[in-house]
Amino acid sequence: MTSSTAPLRLYVSSDLAAGVEFNLLPDQARYIAQVMRRNTGDPILLFNGRDGEWRGVLASISKKSASVLVEQQTRPQGVERGLKLLFAPVKRTATDLIVQKATELGVTLLQPVITQHTNNDRVRTDRLEAIVVEAAEQCCRVMVPEVCEPIALSDAVSDWPDGQVLFVMDETGGGDPVADVMTESAARNMGAAAFVIGPEGGFAETELDLLRSLPFSKFVSLGPRILRADTAALATLTCWQALCGDWRPGPS
Amino acid sequence: MTSSTAPLRLYVSSDLAAGVEFNLLPDQARYIAQVMRRNTGDPILLFNGRDGEWRGVLASISKKSASVLVEQQTRPQGVERGLKLLFAPVKRTATDLIVQKATELGVTLLQPVITQHTNNDRVRTDRLEAIVVEAAEQCCRVMVPEVCEPIALSDAVSDWPDGQVLFVMDETGGGDPVADVMTESAARNMGAAAFVIGPEGGFAETELDLLRSLPFSKFVSLGPRILRADTAALATLTCWQALCGDWRPGPS
Repeated sequence: MTSSTAPLRLYVSSDLAAGVEFNLLPDQARYIAQVMRRNTGDPILLFNGRDGEWRGVLASISKKSASVLVEQQTRPQGVERGLKLLFAPVKRTATDLIVQKATELGVTLLQPVITQHTNNDRVRTDRLEAIVVEAAEQCCRVMVPEVCEPIALSDAVSDWPDGQVLFVMDETGGGDPVADVMTESAARNMGAAAFVIGPEGGFAETELDLLRSLPFSKFVSLGPRILRADTAALATLTCWQALCGDWRPGPS
Repeated sequence: MTSSTAPLRLYVSSDLAAGVEFNLLPDQARYIAQVMRRNTGDPILLFNGRDGEWRGVLASISKKSASVLVEQQTRPQGVERGLKLLFAPVKRTATDLIVQKATELGVTLLQPVITQHTNNDRVRTDRLEAIVVEAAEQCCRVMVPEVCEPIALSDAVSDWPDGQVLFVMDETGGGDPVADVMTESAARNMGAAAFVIGPEGGFAETELDLLRSLPFSKFVSLGPRILRADTAALATLTCWQALCGDWRPGPS
């Protein structure tokens, strides 16, 4: 099936239940009518992060408005395991990439953190939210990760949840191999997980000292090559999903 | 150390040995003088993919030319394990990303393959080579991956090396979990590895039949979400490095 014939898939705010009919947002209507060239009666998949995924049909459509009739649930909402990414914003393209790919890789919360070497502390969270929604629509998730407002690194690690490990992805090569750390985590059947990725210039020494002093931090190495911040973020989430997450259907 | 004070690192074609002096390319000279604002006497790291990494100094520099004096080897060449990525070219930005990130993740050969759903079969390999060189310089590799001219998928899998497994990253969810497949591969201490990633629309049925019929193919799943082609490529190489590659210093 090519993408042009697959049903569209949209994130909506409306409640979803059989027989519900509602208007899509004007931008969604324009996209469906003018970009995707869909017509009345065409199928559509809908999710809102609360009611699972539903199949519906386009009940009416014009260039500027469209309504859908919700028909049948196709997937339950389920519960996603908490997967929190603390990342220092980098250049815009790379930040966009982190946010898009992290969504595909199952992140549930994106927390921009301001560090000493952060070269871009003006983060437009509304832009990032739009990217996250589009990625969730495309990768068939039934929830949309939360995008938080940027905060200082020190604030991000204060008031930390009991029992949650913060994996520090250490570009200086100081940590334990990621596969070993995550295999051990999988064996301990941990719940939510959190990761922090530094900026392009790396963490400052005082920041590394802070992170090392936290009783819940665990330093992790991503190998001998110097990864860009965006590559490190994607590699981290990949390893987690492959070894501890839903890429490996386990007894849990 | 911030990037502005770290020694520059350049890929060169010249032989490298103590006492050798040679001119950099005009583009490299311009970059060093005008973008990075370096001066005569500044240190520089050099590699050519044959002689390891060497420290040198800028012996002379002007706006349009620069020469270096090679001083001392900083790292041996070593031998990198073969890591071959067959990928269907996607949109330009995503193709660029695959090539850049694959270099950071240790790929040794990049083979664009033309498939039925390939939406971009005009691949500028000279552009990709420039991206690969820049990524190798930045991530501190001592070799530059080879970029091959695009060929048809069927040609890419004919005349296959004895004993080499081709991992087919199956976006339809049909394969075995990537962590299990790679943990098993690590235990068997395989040599070179090869992976094939499909285009945005996925492989055509006839292509999947061809891949399934190959005695050396192994289908691998990357979890329940639909990953974009670029995400799938990066996730694949990440899992390999984490479990079978040099991110986990092993007894081998």
